[in-house]
Amino acid sequence: MKNIKLTIEYDGKDFNGWQKQPNKLNIQGEIERAIEEVTGEKVDLIASGRTDAGVHALAQSANFKTNSNIPVEKIPVALNTKLKKSIRIQDAKEVEEKFHSRYNCKQKTYKYIINNGEQGTAIYRNLEYFIPTKLNVEKMKTAINFFEGEHDFKGFKASGTSSKSSIRKIYKTKVEKDGDRIIIQLTGNGFLYNMVRIISGTLVDVGLGKIDPEKIPEIIESKDRTKAGKTLPPYGLYLVKVEY
Amino acid sequence: MKNIKLTIEYDGKDFNGWQKQPNKLNIQGEIERAIEEVTGEKVDLIASGRTDAGVHALAQSANFKTNSNIPVEKIPVALNTKLKKSIRIQDAKEVEEKFHSRYNCKQKTYKYIINNGEQGTAIYRNLEYFIPTKLNVEKMKTAINFFEGEHDFKGFKASGTSSKSSIRKIYKTKVEKDGDRIIIQLTGNGFLYNMVRIISGTLVDVGLGKIDPEKIPEIIESKDRTKAGKTLPPYGLYLVKVEY
Repeated sequence: MKNIKLTIEYDGKDFNGWQKQPNKLNIQGEIERAIEEVTGEKVDLIASGRTDAGVHALAQSANFKTNSNIPVEKIPVALNTKLKKSIRIQDAKEVEEKFHSRYNCKQKTYKYIINNGEQGTAIYRNLEYFIPTKLNVEKMKTAINFFEGEHDFKGFKASGTSSKSSIRKIYKTKVEKDGDRIIIQLTGNGFLYNMVRIISGTLVDVGLGKIDPEKIPEIIESKDRTKAGKTLPPYGLYLVKVEY
Repeated sequence: MKNIKLTIEYDGKDFNGWQKQPNKLNIQGEIERAIEEVTGEKVDLIASGRTDAGVHALAQSANFKTNSNIPVEKIPVALNTKLKKSIRIQDAKEVEEKFHSRYNCKQKTYKYIINNGEQGTAIYRNLEYFIPTKLNVEKMKTAINFFEGEHDFKGFKASGTSSKSSIRKIYKTKVEKDGDRIIIQLTGNGFLYNMVRIISGTLVDVGLGKIDPEKIPEIIESKDRTKAGKTLPPYGLYLVKVEY
Protein backbone atom coordinates (compact mmCIF):
# COMPACT_ATOMS: atom_id res chain seq x y z
CA MET A 1 0.00 0.00 0.00
CA LYS A 2 1.51 3.32 -1.07
CA ASN A 3 0.70 6.67 0.49
CA ILE A 4 0.68 9.43 -2.14
CA LYS A 5 0.83 13.15 -1.38
CA LEU A 6 -0.51 15.50 -4.05
CA THR A 7 0.14 19.21 -4.48
CA ILE A 8 -2.97 20.73 -6.02
CA GLU A 9 -3.76 24.08 -7.62
CA TYR A 10 -7.38 25.11 -8.21
CA ASP A 11 -9.56 27.98 -9.30
CA GLY A 12 -12.11 28.19 -6.52
CA LYS A 13 -14.67 30.07 -8.61
CA ASP A 14 -15.78 26.89 -10.33
CA PHE A 15 -16.44 24.87 -7.15
CA ASN A 16 -18.51 24.71 -3.99
CA GLY A 17 -15.34 24.37 -1.96
CA TRP A 18 -13.00 21.47 -1.25
CA GLN A 19 -15.32 19.18 0.66
CA LYS A 20 -17.27 16.36 -0.90
CA GLN A 21 -21.02 16.93 -0.88
CA PRO A 22 -23.80 15.50 -2.97
CA ASN A 23 -24.99 17.33 -6.10
CA LYS A 24 -22.50 20.15 -5.74
CA LEU A 25 -19.31 20.37 -7.72
CA ASN A 26 -16.42 20.13 -5.26
CA ILE A 27 -12.69 19.63 -5.57
CA GLN A 28 -12.30 16.57 -3.33
CA GLY A 29 -15.02 14.68 -5.22
CA GLU A 30 -13.56 15.58 -8.61
CA ILE A 31 -10.08 14.36 -7.70
CA GLU A 32 -11.36 11.18 -6.02
CA ARG A 33 -13.27 10.44 -9.23
CA ALA A 34 -10.13 11.01 -11.31
CA ILE A 35 -8.11 8.73 -9.00
CA GLU A 36 -10.75 6.02 -9.37
CA GLU A 37 -10.65 6.36 -13.16
CA VAL A 38 -6.86 6.03 -13.15
CA THR A 39 -6.36 3.34 -10.48
CA GLY A 40 -9.72 1.58 -10.36
CA GLU A 41 -9.83 2.21 -6.61
CA LYS A 42 -12.22 4.25 -4.49
CA VAL A 43 -10.02 6.30 -2.17
CA ASP A 44 -10.38 8.85 0.61
CA LEU A 45 -8.47 11.95 -0.31
CA ILE A 46 -7.42 13.78 2.86
CA ALA A 47 -6.57 17.47 2.50
CA SER A 48 -4.60 19.70 4.87
CA GLY A 49 -7.97 21.34 5.49
CA ARG A 50 -11.07 22.41 3.61
CA THR A 51 -11.23 25.56 1.59
CA ASP A 52 -14.59 27.29 1.23
CA ALA A 53 -16.62 27.81 -1.90
CA GLY A 54 -14.82 30.23 -4.19
CA VAL A 55 -11.44 30.15 -2.42
CA HIS A 56 -8.40 29.42 -4.62
CA ALA A 57 -5.39 27.23 -3.87
CA LEU A 58 -1.93 27.65 -5.36
CA ALA A 59 -0.69 24.57 -3.48
CA GLN A 60 -3.17 22.58 -1.43
CA SER A 61 -1.79 19.30 0.01
CA ALA A 62 -3.78 16.07 0.09
CA ASN A 63 -2.91 12.38 0.41
CA PHE A 64 -4.50 9.03 -0.43
CA LYS A 65 -3.53 5.37 -0.16
CA THR A 66 -3.38 3.09 -3.14
CA ASN A 67 -2.36 -0.40 -4.26
CA SER A 68 -1.93 0.84 -7.82
CA ASN A 69 1.54 0.46 -9.27
CA ILE A 70 1.35 3.48 -11.53
CA PRO A 71 4.77 5.21 -11.21
CA VAL A 72 4.39 8.17 -8.87
CA GLU A 73 5.93 10.61 -11.35
CA LYS A 74 3.19 9.74 -13.88
CA ILE A 75 0.35 10.52 -11.46
CA PRO A 76 0.03 14.29 -12.13
CA VAL A 77 -0.40 13.92 -15.89
CA ALA A 78 -2.63 10.82 -15.49
CA LEU A 79 -4.98 12.66 -13.13
CA ASN A 80 -4.86 15.96 -15.04
CA THR A 81 -6.13 14.30 -18.21
CA LYS A 82 -9.21 13.21 -16.21
CA LEU A 83 -9.77 16.55 -14.49
CA LYS A 84 -11.32 19.86 -15.46
CA LYS A 85 -8.74 22.49 -16.32
CA SER A 86 -9.74 24.45 -13.21
CA ILE A 87 -7.93 21.79 -11.12
CA ARG A 88 -4.27 20.93 -11.78
CA ILE A 89 -2.26 18.34 -9.90
CA GLN A 90 1.13 20.07 -9.79
CA ASP A 91 3.07 17.32 -8.05
CA ALA A 92 2.82 13.83 -6.57
CA LYS A 93 5.23 12.04 -4.29
CA GLU A 94 5.29 8.93 -2.17
CA VAL A 95 5.33 9.62 1.56
CA GLU A 96 5.62 7.32 4.58
CA GLU A 97 2.60 5.22 5.42
CA LYS A 98 1.59 7.15 8.52
CA PHE A 99 1.73 10.58 6.87
CA HIS A 100 -1.62 12.41 7.22
CA SER A 101 -2.20 15.69 5.35
CA ARG A 102 -4.28 17.25 8.12
CA TYR A 103 -2.76 15.90 11.34
CA ASN A 104 0.85 16.39 10.25
CA CYS A 105 0.38 19.91 8.91
CA LYS A 106 2.75 22.29 10.73
CA GLN A 107 1.78 25.56 9.11
CA LYS A 108 -0.26 27.06 6.32
CA THR A 109 0.09 30.32 4.44
CA TYR A 110 -2.84 32.23 2.98
CA LYS A 111 -2.87 35.46 1.00
CA TYR A 112 -5.70 37.87 0.27
CA ILE A 113 -5.45 40.13 -2.80
CA ILE A 114 -7.15 43.53 -2.80
CA ASN A 115 -7.30 45.72 -5.88
CA ASN A 116 -7.25 49.30 -4.65
CA GLY A 117 -7.03 50.98 -8.08
CA GLU A 118 -9.62 53.49 -9.20
CA GLN A 119 -11.60 51.31 -11.62
CA GLY A 120 -10.74 47.74 -10.66
CA THR A 121 -9.63 45.28 -13.26
CA ALA A 122 -11.37 43.45 -16.10
CA ILE A 123 -8.83 40.69 -16.63
CA TYR A 124 -8.29 39.71 -12.98
CA ARG A 125 -11.83 40.49 -11.78
CA ASN A 126 -12.42 36.95 -10.47
CA LEU A 127 -9.03 36.79 -8.79
CA GLU A 128 -9.00 39.81 -6.49
CA TYR A 129 -11.31 41.93 -4.36
CA PHE A 130 -11.86 45.46 -5.62
CA ILE A 131 -12.29 48.44 -3.35
CA PRO A 132 -11.84 51.89 -4.93
CA THR A 133 -11.60 53.97 -1.73
CA LYS A 134 -7.90 54.54 -1.02
CA LEU A 135 -6.69 52.44 1.89
CA ASN A 136 -3.98 53.57 4.29
CA VAL A 137 -1.49 50.75 3.86
CA GLU A 138 0.83 51.95 6.65
CA LYS A 139 -1.99 51.64 9.17
CA MET A 140 -2.81 48.16 7.84
CA LYS A 141 0.86 47.18 8.30
CA THR A 142 0.77 48.35 11.92
CA ALA A 143 -2.52 46.55 12.57
CA ILE A 144 -1.56 43.15 11.14
CA ASN A 145 1.36 42.82 13.60
CA PHE A 146 -1.11 42.52 16.48
CA PHE A 147 -2.46 39.27 15.02
CA GLU A 148 0.88 37.51 15.46
CA GLY A 149 1.27 35.03 18.32
CA GLU A 150 -1.18 32.70 20.03
CA HIS A 151 -4.70 34.09 20.48
CA ASP A 152 -8.25 32.93 20.92
CA PHE A 153 -9.69 33.95 17.54
CA LYS A 154 -13.31 33.31 18.51
CA GLY A 155 -14.26 36.78 17.25
CA PHE A 156 -12.67 36.01 13.88
CA LYS A 157 -14.63 32.96 12.80
CA ALA A 158 -17.96 32.61 11.07
CA SER A 159 -20.71 32.45 13.64
CA GLY A 160 -22.53 29.15 13.97
CA THR A 161 -19.45 27.04 13.34
CA SER A 162 -18.28 24.66 16.02
CA SER A 163 -14.59 23.84 16.39
CA LYS A 164 -13.23 22.33 19.58
CA SER A 165 -10.92 25.25 20.19
CA SER A 166 -10.65 28.67 18.62
CA ILE A 167 -7.06 29.16 19.78
CA ARG A 168 -4.61 29.45 16.89
CA LYS A 169 -1.03 30.62 16.57
CA ILE A 170 0.00 33.03 13.82
CA TYR A 171 3.70 32.92 13.06
CA LYS A 172 4.12 35.50 10.36
CA THR A 173 2.14 38.33 8.79
CA LYS A 174 2.70 40.77 5.98
CA VAL A 175 0.88 43.57 4.17
CA GLU A 176 2.48 44.45 0.85
CA LYS A 177 1.69 47.06 -1.79
CA ASP A 178 2.34 46.14 -5.43
CA GLY A 179 1.09 48.87 -7.76
CA ASP A 180 -2.70 49.03 -7.34
CA ARG A 181 -2.69 45.79 -5.33
CA ILE A 182 -2.52 45.29 -1.58
CA ILE A 183 -1.57 41.77 -0.55
CA ILE A 184 -2.28 40.48 2.96
CA GLN A 185 -0.37 37.34 3.94
CA LEU A 186 -0.71 35.19 7.05
CA THR A 187 1.18 32.06 8.14
CA GLY A 188 -0.13 30.08 11.10
CA ASN A 189 -0.64 26.64 12.59
CA GLY A 190 -4.25 26.70 11.45
CA PHE A 191 -7.11 29.00 10.59
CA LEU A 192 -10.77 28.95 11.66
CA TYR A 193 -13.67 29.02 9.26
CA ASN A 194 -13.58 32.41 7.41
CA MET A 195 -10.78 33.61 9.69
CA VAL A 196 -8.47 35.01 6.99
CA ARG A 197 -11.38 36.71 5.24
CA ILE A 198 -12.53 38.32 8.53
CA ILE A 199 -8.99 39.43 9.44
CA SER A 200 -8.68 40.91 5.91
CA GLY A 201 -12.03 42.68 6.30
CA THR A 202 -10.87 44.08 9.63
CA LEU A 203 -7.65 45.32 8.00
CA VAL A 204 -9.73 47.02 5.28
CA ASP A 205 -11.63 48.84 8.04
CA VAL A 206 -8.26 49.89 9.46
CA GLY A 207 -7.19 51.10 6.00
CA LEU A 208 -10.43 53.07 5.72
CA GLY A 209 -9.82 54.74 9.09
CA LYS A 210 -12.86 53.06 10.69
CA ILE A 211 -10.76 51.04 13.13
CA ASP A 212 -7.65 52.35 14.87
CA PRO A 213 -4.71 49.91 14.46
CA GLU A 214 -4.02 50.09 18.21
CA LYS A 215 -7.54 48.75 18.89
CA ILE A 216 -6.76 45.36 17.36
CA PRO A 217 -5.58 43.66 20.60
CA GLU A 218 -8.80 44.80 22.29
CA ILE A 219 -10.92 43.46 19.41
CA ILE A 220 -9.14 40.10 19.54
CA GLU A 221 -9.55 39.89 23.33
CA SER A 222 -13.25 40.75 23.13
CA LYS A 223 -13.87 37.44 21.23
CA ASP A 224 -16.85 39.29 19.78
CA ARG A 225 -17.51 38.73 16.06
CA THR A 226 -19.39 42.03 15.80
CA LYS A 227 -16.28 44.03 16.80
CA ALA A 228 -14.25 42.68 13.84
CA GLY A 229 -14.68 43.77 10.20
CA LYS A 230 -16.83 42.12 7.57
CA THR A 231 -16.00 38.83 5.83
CA LEU A 232 -14.40 39.68 2.48
CA PRO A 233 -15.52 37.63 -0.55
CA PRO A 234 -13.82 34.28 -1.23
CA TYR A 235 -12.41 35.04 -4.70
CA GLY A 236 -9.60 37.24 -3.28
CA LEU A 237 -8.31 34.42 -1.05
CA TYR A 238 -5.55 31.94 -1.90
CA LEU A 239 -4.13 28.98 0.03
CA VAL A 240 -0.48 29.62 -0.86
CA LYS A 241 1.32 26.70 0.80
CA VAL A 242 1.09 23.96 3.36
CA GLU A 243 4.19 22.97 5.33
CA TYR A 244 4.96 19.72 7.18
CA MET B 1 -17.52 69.34 -29.41
CA LYS B 2 -15.07 67.54 -27.16
CA ASN B 3 -12.75 64.75 -28.26
CA ILE B 4 -12.34 62.15 -25.50
CA LYS B 5 -9.60 59.52 -25.41
CA LEU B 6 -10.28 56.40 -23.35
CA THR B 7 -7.79 53.89 -21.97
CA ILE B 8 -9.54 50.53 -21.88
CA GLU B 9 -8.74 47.18 -20.27
CA TYR B 10 -10.64 44.06 -21.34
CA ASP B 11 -10.76 40.31 -20.93
CA GLY B 12 -10.86 39.08 -24.51
CA LYS B 13 -12.33 35.69 -23.61
CA ASP B 14 -15.81 37.11 -23.28
CA PHE B 15 -15.90 38.84 -26.69
CA ASN B 16 -15.75 38.28 -30.43
CA GLY B 17 -13.01 40.87 -30.67
CA TRP B 18 -13.00 44.65 -30.68
CA GLN B 19 -14.92 45.33 -33.87
CA LYS B 20 -18.63 46.02 -34.00
CA GLN B 21 -20.59 43.26 -35.72
CA PRO B 22 -24.22 42.25 -35.56
CA ASN B 23 -25.36 39.54 -33.11
CA LYS B 24 -21.89 38.98 -31.70
CA LEU B 25 -20.73 40.42 -28.42
CA ASN B 26 -17.91 42.84 -29.16
CA ILE B 27 -16.02 45.46 -27.17
CA GLN B 28 -16.59 48.46 -29.46
CA GLY B 29 -20.35 47.89 -29.51
CA GLU B 30 -20.55 47.48 -25.74
CA ILE B 31 -18.69 50.72 -25.05
CA GLU B 32 -20.63 52.68 -27.71
CA ARG B 33 -23.84 51.48 -26.02
CA ALA B 34 -22.55 52.60 -22.61
CA ILE B 35 -21.56 56.02 -24.03
CA GLU B 36 -25.06 56.41 -25.50
CA GLU B 37 -26.62 55.49 -22.15
CA VAL B 38 -24.47 58.08 -20.38
CA THR B 39 -24.50 60.95 -22.92
CA GLY B 40 -27.62 60.25 -24.96
CA GLU B 41 -25.48 60.39 -28.11
CA LYS B 42 -24.69 57.74 -30.71
CA VAL B 43 -20.93 57.95 -31.25
CA ASP B 44 -18.23 56.28 -33.33
CA LEU B 45 -15.59 54.90 -31.04
CA ILE B 46 -12.27 54.73 -32.91
CA ALA B 47 -9.65 52.36 -31.51
CA SER B 48 -5.90 52.30 -32.19
CA GLY B 49 -6.70 49.10 -34.06
CA ARG B 50 -8.86 46.01 -33.72
CA THR B 51 -8.01 43.14 -31.50
CA ASP B 52 -9.21 39.68 -32.53
CA ALA B 53 -11.67 37.45 -30.72
CA GLY B 54 -10.17 36.28 -27.44
CA VAL B 55 -7.26 38.75 -27.34
CA HIS B 56 -6.89 40.77 -24.11
CA ALA B 57 -5.99 44.43 -23.69
CA LEU B 58 -4.32 45.98 -20.67
CA ALA B 59 -4.52 49.44 -22.23
CA GLN B 60 -6.29 49.82 -25.56
CA SER B 61 -6.77 53.44 -26.71
CA ALA B 62 -9.93 54.72 -28.36
CA ASN B 63 -11.51 58.14 -28.90
CA PHE B 64 -14.98 59.58 -29.55
CA LYS B 65 -16.50 63.03 -30.00
CA THR B 66 -19.27 64.32 -27.80
CA ASN B 67 -21.30 67.42 -26.98
CA SER B 68 -22.01 66.10 -23.52
CA ASN B 69 -20.80 68.25 -20.66
CA ILE B 70 -20.14 65.40 -18.26
CA PRO B 71 -16.80 66.23 -16.56
CA VAL B 72 -14.07 64.16 -18.20
CA GLU B 73 -12.83 62.78 -14.87
CA LYS B 74 -16.29 61.30 -14.21
CA ILE B 75 -16.40 59.40 -17.50
CA PRO B 76 -14.60 56.18 -16.38
CA VAL B 77 -16.93 55.51 -13.44
CA ALA B 78 -20.02 56.59 -15.43
CA LEU B 79 -19.20 54.17 -18.26
CA ASN B 80 -18.02 51.35 -15.95
CA THR B 81 -21.36 51.26 -14.17
CA LYS B 82 -22.99 50.58 -17.56
CA LEU B 83 -20.44 47.98 -18.71
CA LYS B 84 -19.85 44.31 -18.02
CA LYS B 85 -17.03 43.73 -15.55
CA SER B 86 -14.93 42.18 -18.33
CA ILE B 87 -14.43 45.72 -19.73
CA ARG B 88 -13.02 48.52 -17.55
CA ILE B 89 -12.45 52.09 -18.66
CA GLN B 90 -9.24 52.87 -16.79
CA ASP B 91 -8.87 56.48 -17.85
CA ALA B 92 -10.46 59.27 -19.89
CA LYS B 93 -8.96 62.53 -21.01
CA GLU B 94 -9.81 65.36 -23.35
CA VAL B 95 -7.54 65.54 -26.41
CA GLU B 96 -7.30 68.01 -29.26
CA GLU B 97 -10.09 67.94 -31.83
CA LYS B 98 -8.02 66.42 -34.63
CA PHE B 99 -6.61 63.54 -32.52
CA HIS B 100 -7.40 60.15 -34.09
CA SER B 101 -6.64 56.93 -32.17
CA ARG B 102 -5.62 54.98 -35.25
CA TYR B 103 -3.96 57.55 -37.53
CA ASN B 104 -1.95 59.19 -34.76
CA CYS B 105 -0.71 55.96 -33.18
CA LYS B 106 3.11 55.92 -33.16
CA GLN B 107 3.74 52.52 -31.63
CA LYS B 108 2.04 49.60 -29.96
CA THR B 109 3.35 46.97 -27.58
CA TYR B 110 1.99 43.44 -27.38
CA LYS B 111 3.01 40.58 -25.12
CA TYR B 112 2.36 36.86 -25.43
CA ILE B 113 2.43 34.73 -22.27
CA ILE B 114 3.46 31.07 -22.47
CA ASN B 115 3.22 28.72 -19.48
CA ASN B 116 6.07 26.24 -19.87
CA GLY B 117 5.56 24.45 -16.54
CA GLU B 118 4.96 20.72 -16.37
CA GLN B 119 1.22 20.74 -15.65
CA GLY B 120 0.00 24.18 -16.72
CA THR B 121 -2.07 26.28 -14.41
CA ALA B 122 -5.66 26.09 -13.15
CA ILE B 123 -6.04 29.67 -11.97
CA TYR B 124 -4.54 31.43 -15.02
CA ARG B 125 -5.67 28.86 -17.62
CA ASN B 126 -7.58 31.45 -19.67
CA LEU B 127 -4.77 33.97 -19.50
CA GLU B 128 -1.76 32.11 -20.90
CA TYR B 129 -0.87 29.44 -23.45
CA PHE B 130 0.35 26.16 -21.98
CA ILE B 131 3.02 24.03 -23.60
CA PRO B 132 4.66 21.37 -21.38
CA THR B 133 7.64 20.52 -23.62
CA LYS B 134 10.64 22.49 -22.33
CA LEU B 135 11.50 25.38 -24.63
CA ASN B 136 15.04 26.62 -25.16
CA VAL B 137 14.65 30.24 -24.10
CA GLU B 138 18.18 31.25 -25.13
CA LYS B 139 17.46 30.23 -28.71
CA MET B 140 14.16 32.14 -28.60
CA LYS B 141 16.05 35.24 -27.41
CA THR B 142 18.47 34.95 -30.33
CA ALA B 143 15.64 34.43 -32.80
CA ILE B 144 13.46 37.36 -31.75
CA ASN B 145 16.25 39.87 -32.49
CA PHE B 146 15.93 39.10 -36.21
CA PHE B 147 12.38 40.50 -36.22
CA GLU B 148 13.59 43.98 -35.30
CA GLY B 149 13.71 46.64 -38.00
CA GLU B 150 11.57 47.24 -41.09
CA HIS B 151 10.46 44.10 -42.91
CA ASP B 152 7.74 42.88 -45.23
CA PHE B 153 5.83 40.58 -42.85
CA LYS B 154 3.66 39.03 -45.56
CA GLY B 155 4.61 35.55 -44.30
CA PHE B 156 3.47 36.49 -40.78
CA LYS B 157 -0.13 37.42 -41.39
CA ALA B 158 -3.27 35.33 -41.57
CA SER B 159 -3.84 34.23 -45.16
CA GLY B 160 -6.86 35.68 -46.92
CA THR B 161 -6.51 39.10 -45.29
CA SER B 162 -5.96 42.13 -47.44
CA SER B 163 -4.00 45.08 -46.12
CA LYS B 164 -2.53 47.68 -48.44
CA SER B 165 1.01 46.97 -47.32
CA SER B 166 2.52 44.25 -45.20
CA ILE B 167 5.62 46.30 -44.37
CA ARG B 168 5.92 47.04 -40.66
CA LYS B 169 8.70 48.29 -38.44
CA ILE B 170 9.50 46.57 -35.16
CA TYR B 171 11.36 48.80 -32.73
CA LYS B 172 11.91 46.58 -29.71
CA THR B 173 11.66 42.91 -28.84
CA LYS B 174 12.15 40.85 -25.69
CA VAL B 175 11.88 37.26 -24.52
CA GLU B 176 11.81 36.96 -20.74
CA LYS B 177 11.62 33.99 -18.40
CA ASP B 178 9.70 34.42 -15.14
CA GLY B 179 9.45 31.12 -13.24
CA ASP B 180 7.40 28.75 -15.42
CA ARG B 181 6.40 31.61 -17.72
CA ILE B 182 8.01 32.79 -20.94
CA ILE B 183 6.93 36.27 -22.01
CA ILE B 184 7.40 37.46 -25.58
CA GLN B 185 7.15 41.22 -26.09
CA LEU B 186 7.11 43.23 -29.30
CA THR B 187 6.89 46.99 -29.90
CA GLY B 188 6.28 48.24 -33.43
CA ASN B 189 4.58 50.86 -35.58
CA GLY B 190 1.82 48.38 -36.34
CA PHE B 191 1.03 44.69 -36.56
CA LEU B 192 -0.75 42.68 -39.25
CA TYR B 193 -3.68 40.37 -38.61
CA ASN B 194 -2.44 37.51 -36.36
CA MET B 195 1.17 38.74 -36.73
CA VAL B 196 2.15 38.59 -33.05
CA ARG B 197 0.54 35.16 -32.65
CA ILE B 198 2.40 33.83 -35.71
CA ILE B 199 5.73 35.32 -34.58
CA SER B 200 5.13 33.73 -31.14
CA GLY B 201 4.32 30.38 -32.76
CA THR B 202 7.52 30.64 -34.79
CA LEU B 203 9.49 31.37 -31.62
CA VAL B 204 7.92 28.29 -29.99
CA ASP B 205 9.20 26.23 -32.93
CA VAL B 206 12.63 27.77 -32.33
CA GLY B 207 12.37 26.86 -28.63
CA LEU B 208 11.43 23.29 -29.59
CA GLY B 209 14.46 23.04 -31.88
CA LYS B 210 12.31 22.74 -35.02
CA ILE B 211 13.55 26.02 -36.48
CA ASP B 212 17.13 27.26 -36.20
CA PRO B 213 17.26 30.87 -34.87
CA GLU B 214 19.61 31.82 -37.71
CA LYS B 215 16.94 30.83 -40.26
CA ILE B 216 14.57 33.62 -39.17
CA PRO B 217 15.85 36.25 -41.69
CA GLU B 218 15.35 33.71 -44.49
CA ILE B 219 11.82 32.89 -43.30
CA ILE B 220 10.93 36.60 -43.15
CA GLU B 221 12.38 37.20 -46.64
CA SER B 222 10.51 34.22 -48.11
CA LYS B 223 7.18 36.02 -47.40
CA ASP B 224 5.75 32.51 -47.26
CA ARG B 225 3.21 31.86 -44.49
CA THR B 226 3.95 28.11 -44.58
CA LYS B 227 7.58 28.67 -43.55
CA ALA B 228 6.59 30.39 -40.28
CA GLY B 229 5.21 28.63 -37.19
CA LYS B 230 1.59 28.10 -36.29
CA THR B 231 -0.74 30.80 -35.01
CA LEU B 232 -0.86 30.52 -31.21
CA PRO B 233 -4.27 30.84 -29.53
CA PRO B 234 -5.62 34.33 -28.74
CA TYR B 235 -5.95 33.98 -24.96
CA GLY B 236 -2.17 34.28 -24.41
CA LEU B 237 -2.02 37.65 -26.20
CA TYR B 238 -2.24 41.10 -24.60
CA LEU B 239 -2.24 44.58 -26.09
CA VAL B 240 -0.02 46.18 -23.44
CA LYS B 241 0.12 49.83 -24.53
CA VAL B 242 -0.46 52.27 -27.36
CA GLU B 243 1.79 55.30 -27.72
CA TYR B 244 1.16 58.61 -29.52
